[in-house]
Amino acid sequence: MNSEKISASVSERVSAWLVKNGIDAESDAASQADATARSDAFRSAMRRLGGAVNIVTTQDGSARFGLTATAVCSLTANPPRLLACVNLSGRSYQAIAKARCMAVNVLGIQHRELAFAFAGKQGEDPFASIENWTQAATGAPILTDALASFDCDVEQMMITTTHAIVIGDIRHISYGVGGKPLLYLDGEFMTSGALLPD
Amino acid sequence: MNSEKISASVSERVSAWLVKNGIDAESDAASQADATARSDAFRSAMRRLGGAVNIVTTQDGSARFGLTATAVCSLTANPPRLLACVNLSGRSYQAIAKARCMAVNVLGIQHRELAFAFAGKQGEDPFASIENWTQAATGAPILTDALASFDCDVEQMMITTTHAIVIGDIRHISYGVGGKPLLYLDGEFMTSGALLPD
Repeated sequence: MNSEKISASVSERVSAWLVKNGIDAESDAASQADATARSDAFRSAMRRLGGAVNIVTTQDGSARFGLTATAVCSLTANPPRLLACVNLSGRSYQAIAKARCMAVNVLGIQHRELAFAFAGKQGEDPFASIENWTQAATGAPILTDALASFDCDVEQMMITTTHAIVIGDIRHISYGVGGKPLLYLDGEFMTSGALLPD
Repeated sequence: MNSEKISASVSERVSAWLVKNGIDAESDAASQADATARSDAFRSAMRRLGGAVNIVTTQDGSARFGLTATAVCSLTANPPRLLACVNLSGRSYQAIAKARCMAVNVLGIQHRELAFAFAGKQGEDPFASIENWTQAATGAPILTDALASFDCDVEQMMITTTHAIVIGDIRHISYGVGGKPLLYLDGEFMTSGALLPD
């Protein structure tokens, strides 16, 4: 590893201290400004944490719901469980909480427009394309050509300030032979690339 | 979207039903075989869920601990919190539980060897390279040229069968101007690549 490179990288780093809620706040306005600065630093730094783009779906009665999510990760292999962080303010959260099921569909590069649609950036029904969807054992919609799909019962939900950690107990798994993943990094959709030799 | 592509992809999909623990088991041996099949299907499908590679660190007294982790995600922006899923069987988990702090260091492509070292695939002390590490406010080791580092108090830990969900309350953030991320996907280290036009 090259120490010159490291020094350059360090000197270019942005460093932000996050004062604990309220301790240093002299007024509500100052406290609000602190909170905004904290959230901004958090969002900027989190852009560096690249990840797979997923559509988390559920079905409540005959109504289907879904959202684009990157905050999804593996939890345990035995029993097979994963977790997703879901915003409490969305309709999908309410539906997941009621139906107690969700499916996590891992997106490929062919799903970029779907990712936008489920992120609420288009007005149309994101499930409008019938041929893309089937129904899982739990009832949750499964994207037929997802890189992988995990159909889950909701095992547990932990509520935090703005998001729920939803633990999914996986009932059914399907996955394809591969394909290029849709990733989100530095505020952009990307895909994977090979590591070049040093 | 091309329907031929979708059909081909669907026909190549592996589908695995996961029977709930014990319900269908006729004996302990059958139950064990079921559990192994479930875990294998889970691991195969989870390889499709690409993600950033991180080193999660802590310091307990004068001893430093760390592990390579991909199961890390953003939780809430206000207050700034993240979560990491940490194997209960490792020394790092014990140290995090005792010290009640952790740092999440997001790796770049220059950190491939470090990722191996902290995954326990080399015998040497993974912290041996002094110039790579500094100390955060909480005491947890910070990788000086990480793409981003999040220094956290442990807010809460939820214990599951084999892993703890560790919620970190972020005290300090630092991040650089960018750099190529180290990603893990389909069982390999990779990096990001631009999406090509359709």
